[in-house]
Amino acid sequence: MKRKTYGFATLIPALLLASPALAQHDPAALQAKALEDDTAYDIVEGLTTEVGHRLAGTEDEARARDWAVQKLASLGFENIRVEPFTLPVWVRGEEEAYITSPFPHKMHITALGNSASTGEDGLEAEIAYFPTLADLSAARDGSLEGKIAFVSHKMTKTMDGSSYGAFGGARFIGPRIASQKGAAAIIIRSVGTDYHRNPHTGGTSFANGDPIPAAAISIPDAENLERVIARGKPVTVKLKLTPRTLGELESGNVITEIPGSDPNAPIIVIGGHLDSWDLGTGAVDDGAGVAITTAAAKLVKDAGQPKRTIRLIWFGSEEVGIYGGRAYAEKHGAAGHAIAMESDFGAGRIWRVEFKLPEGNDALKTEIANALAPLGIGKSEIMASGGPDNGPLVRLGVNAIDLQQDGTDYFDLHHTPDDTLDKIDPKAMQQNVAAWATVLSIIANSDADIAARPVEPEG
Amino acid sequence: MKRKTYGFATLIPALLLASPALAQHDPAALQAKALEDDTAYDIVEGLTTEVGHRLAGTEDEARARDWAVQKLASLGFENIRVEPFTLPVWVRGEEEAYITSPFPHKMHITALGNSASTGEDGLEAEIAYFPTLADLSAARDGSLEGKIAFVSHKMTKTMDGSSYGAFGGARFIGPRIASQKGAAAIIIRSVGTDYHRNPHTGGTSFANGDPIPAAAISIPDAENLERVIARGKPVTVKLKLTPRTLGELESGNVITEIPGSDPNAPIIVIGGHLDSWDLGTGAVDDGAGVAITTAAAKLVKDAGQPKRTIRLIWFGSEEVGIYGGRAYAEKHGAAGHAIAMESDFGAGRIWRVEFKLPEGNDALKTEIANALAPLGIGKSEIMASGGPDNGPLVRLGVNAIDLQQDGTDYFDLHHTPDDTLDKIDPKAMQQNVAAWATVLSIIANSDADIAARPVEPEG
Repeated sequence: MKRKTYGFATLIPALLLASPALAQHDPAALQAKALEDDTAYDIVEGLTTEVGHRLAGTEDEARARDWAVQKLASLGFENIRVEPFTLPVWVRGEEEAYITSPFPHKMHITALGNSASTGEDGLEAEIAYFPTLADLSAARDGSLEGKIAFVSHKMTKTMDGSSYGAFGGARFIGPRIASQKGAAAIIIRSVGTDYHRNPHTGGTSFANGDPIPAAAISIPDAENLERVIARGKPVTVKLKLTPRTLGELESGNVITEIPGSDPNAPIIVIGGHLDSWDLGTGAVDDGAGVAITTAAAKLVKDAGQPKRTIRLIWFGSEEVGIYGGRAYAEKHGAAGHAIAMESDFGAGRIWRVEFKLPEGNDALKTEIANALAPLGIGKSEIMASGGPDNGPLVRLGVNAIDLQQDGTDYFDLHHTPDDTLDKIDPKAMQQNVAAWATVLSIIANSDADIAARPVEPEG
Repeated sequence: MKRKTYGFATLIPALLLASPALAQHDPAALQAKALEDDTAYDIVEGLTTEVGHRLAGTEDEARARDWAVQKLASLGFENIRVEPFTLPVWVRGEEEAYITSPFPHKMHITALGNSASTGEDGLEAEIAYFPTLADLSAARDGSLEGKIAFVSHKMTKTMDGSSYGAFGGARFIGPRIASQKGAAAIIIRSVGTDYHRNPHTGGTSFANGDPIPAAAISIPDAENLERVIARGKPVTVKLKLTPRTLGELESGNVITEIPGSDPNAPIIVIGGHLDSWDLGTGAVDDGAGVAITTAAAKLVKDAGQPKRTIRLIWFGSEEVGIYGGRAYAEKHGAAGHAIAMESDFGAGRIWRVEFKLPEGNDALKTEIANALAPLGIGKSEIMASGGPDNGPLVRLGVNAIDLQQDGTDYFDLHHTPDDTLDKIDPKAMQQNVAAWATVLSIIANSDADIAARPVEPEG
C-alpha cells in the first residue's frame, strides 16, 4: 500500500491566513465547550456497559447497531438509518494451550480470526521455533510437516503506531506462510507491547481452502516458551481451538447527518467503527472513535448549521476486513464527498494533524494547524490516510485529514481482554473532541476547493 | 494479630558503634559483589521456567522440591533435606462467569482457595450488591438466601503493603460472612490494585461444613458489574466453578545450612516459600524470596565460615495456611534460634529495615542500619514480624529482622496469572541480595545477645 507518503516539507512560518470564522464556529469557544463536555465518555461508557463486545456479523454487533440508533436519536441526530451489507462470519470456540514437554505449563492463548479448528480432541505436536517472521519465511517448504510453527517476533512501542505495520506481519501473513510450508498449526507471540497474560487476537488470512489452526499466546507465555526452547530439548505443545464459521450474515453501517446549508457543497464524512473484537469490551477499539466523532459532531451541530453536510458513520465489521468501509464506498462512490476523517487509534491525546488535500489548500491547512495549536497539536507533512474505514473512499479520490493520537500504549490493549472502559482517560478524550470539533467547524464551513478528485478504483 | 506493634522511638544519632567486621564479611565488599551477582535471577528464572506454578500439596509442588534440592546442591550447599508434613489439598477446576441479564457479559473469574463447587451445571442467581465489606456485614441474616453476594471493596496502593490488611477482608472473611447470611455464592472484586482482566485468587475460609462457591472477578469486570447494577434493573449472574478437595497430601520444607564455627551459638533462620498459587508461575510470590535469600546465603558462605549457623528454608505450602512454617516451628521449637528473616513481598527494592530484638541491642541495630544506608535503606521503628513462614517461630520467642521491599506495585500481580518472570527487575533483585548479604554477614558473626527468649505458644 502506498497510502502513507511524505508530502512537501514546506516549512512556511505559520501566518495568520485564516478567513474569519463564523461567530458560532469560533474554535476557541468550541474548544472551551469540548474540554468540559462529557458526551464522548458517556457514549463509550454506555456502549461498553450496555452492549460490551460486538464481533462483526454477530447478534452482539446487531444489538450494538440498535443501541447506536437509539443513542444517536437521544443526542438529537436525525435521519438515522442502517445501510446493511453481508460478510462471512467467524466466531471463537474453546481455546486452550499447554506446553506438555519437557516442562508442563498452561499458556494463555487466543485464536486469530479465520483460524481453523483443531477439533475437539486438539492437536499435540513438536514446536518449530522461528525468532522472526523472516526466519519462518526462510524455512524450507515441507520442513514444517506435522509441526506447530512458533513465531516470536517482538514488537516495539511507537507513538505513531508504525510498529504495527513493521512487526504485525507475524499475524497478518505468518499463518499463511506456515500453512504453505506444511505446518499443522501456528502460534505467534502476540502482536502487542504489554507484559500481561492477555493474548492479542486479530484477523489473519490464508490461501483459499488452506487454513490451519492459528493463535496468539500472551507475551509472558511467548518469552517463557522461548526459555523452555533454550533448554535445548524437543518441546511439544498441545492446542485446542474450536472456532467455526457461520456463513454469510448481515452487518451494517449506522449513518446520520448534520445537513448543511448548501446542498451542493461536497460533504464531510467522519466516524469510527462500531464492531470490536470479542475479548474486551471494545472501549479503545473503537468505542472511543465513535464516541469522539459523535460528540464533536454534536458540538458543531449545536453551534449552528454548517455550510457543508457532515455525515457521521458508525461503520460495521471493520476488524475482520473493513467490510463496512468497502460497502459504503461501493454504494456511494467518491462523487459529492470532500473530506473523510476517522478516529480509530484509541483514546490517547492528539499530537499532530496530517492532510491529504488538493494542491492550493495551504491556507486551509494553516488555518486548521493554527486553530489546533492551543490543544498541543502540531502539523505533520505526512500524508493523511483517512483511517481504515475511509480507506476505500480515499482510494477513490476523496481527501482526508487525520488527527493522530498518541498510540504509545495502544498496543498494550489492542485486541485483548484488557480493552475496557477503565483504560480511557476522560481528559484526553475531551482533548480529542476539542480537536475534532475544531477541524469539523473549519472544514464544514470552508469555501476552499476540497471536492474529491475521483480516480479509477485499483484492481 | 498483634505482630505489628510500634517500638520505642529512640532517635539516637547514628553512632559508629559497630565492632570491626571480619575482613571476609566486609559489608562494602559483599555489596559490591552482590550488585554484580546473577545467582538470584538465575534461580527464579529456572524455577519459573522449569517448574512453573506449584500449588501447595500438588505434584507440581513436589517437582519444585526436587528442583530445589538439585539447585541448592549445584550451588554448593550441603546436607540438603526435605522435612515433610501433610495438609488438606484443594485444587481448581473449571471457572466461568457471565452476567446473563440485563446485559450479557463474560467475566474473568477465579475461585478462591477452599471455595465450594457450583457443580457442573453451574449456578444462576440474582446479585446482592455490597460496595464494602461493612455493607455485607450489615446485611440482615437470611437476606441473601438464594442470591450471589457481590462485594466490590476497593483496595488502594501502599508502599508497605498495609492496604492488604486494611482491604483484604473482602476475601479473608467475606465468603464466611456471606455463607452465614445464607448466600448461594459470593463474588468479590479482586483484592488487587491493577486494571487488568486478571482475577486475583487467594485463600479464604468458612465455618466448618459451610463452604459456598466463592470467587474473585477482575477489577475491570467488577467496575463493569457495578455500572450494570447502577442501571437499576435486577442483575443475574451465572457461575461455574468446579474446584475439588483431594484429602490430606504431602508437602515439605526444603532445608540446608551454612554450618557456623560455633556450634553452640543460636542460629539464624532465613528463607521464602516454595509453593505458589496456580495462576501465574510464582515469580514474585515467592520465587523471588527463595532466590534472594539463597543468593545472599551463598555470598556469605563464599566469604568464609560465619560464627553462627545460617539455616536456609524453602518453605512448603505457605499460601494455603502457612503449613510449612507451622510444621517447622512445631518440630524445632524456639530453642537454639537467634533471628528469623523472610523475603516474601516480591522483588521490589528494599527501602527500610525493621527489628524485633531483645533490649540492649541498639548497637547491633545501628551497625546494621549504617551498613544498609549505602543501599538506600533507612531504619524503621516498626517491629519486625519475621515474615509469614517465620510467624509461628517468632510467636514462640525467636527474634526477627525484616528487610521491607517497596510493594507499591506488588498487588498488581499478587496471586494473578501475571505473576511471571518478566515482572522482576534484575537490578532491584541485586539490591535485595546486597541488603540480605549485608545483614546476614553482620548477624551471623555477631557476639550480641540475640538468643530467642522462648514464650508459651498462644492458644
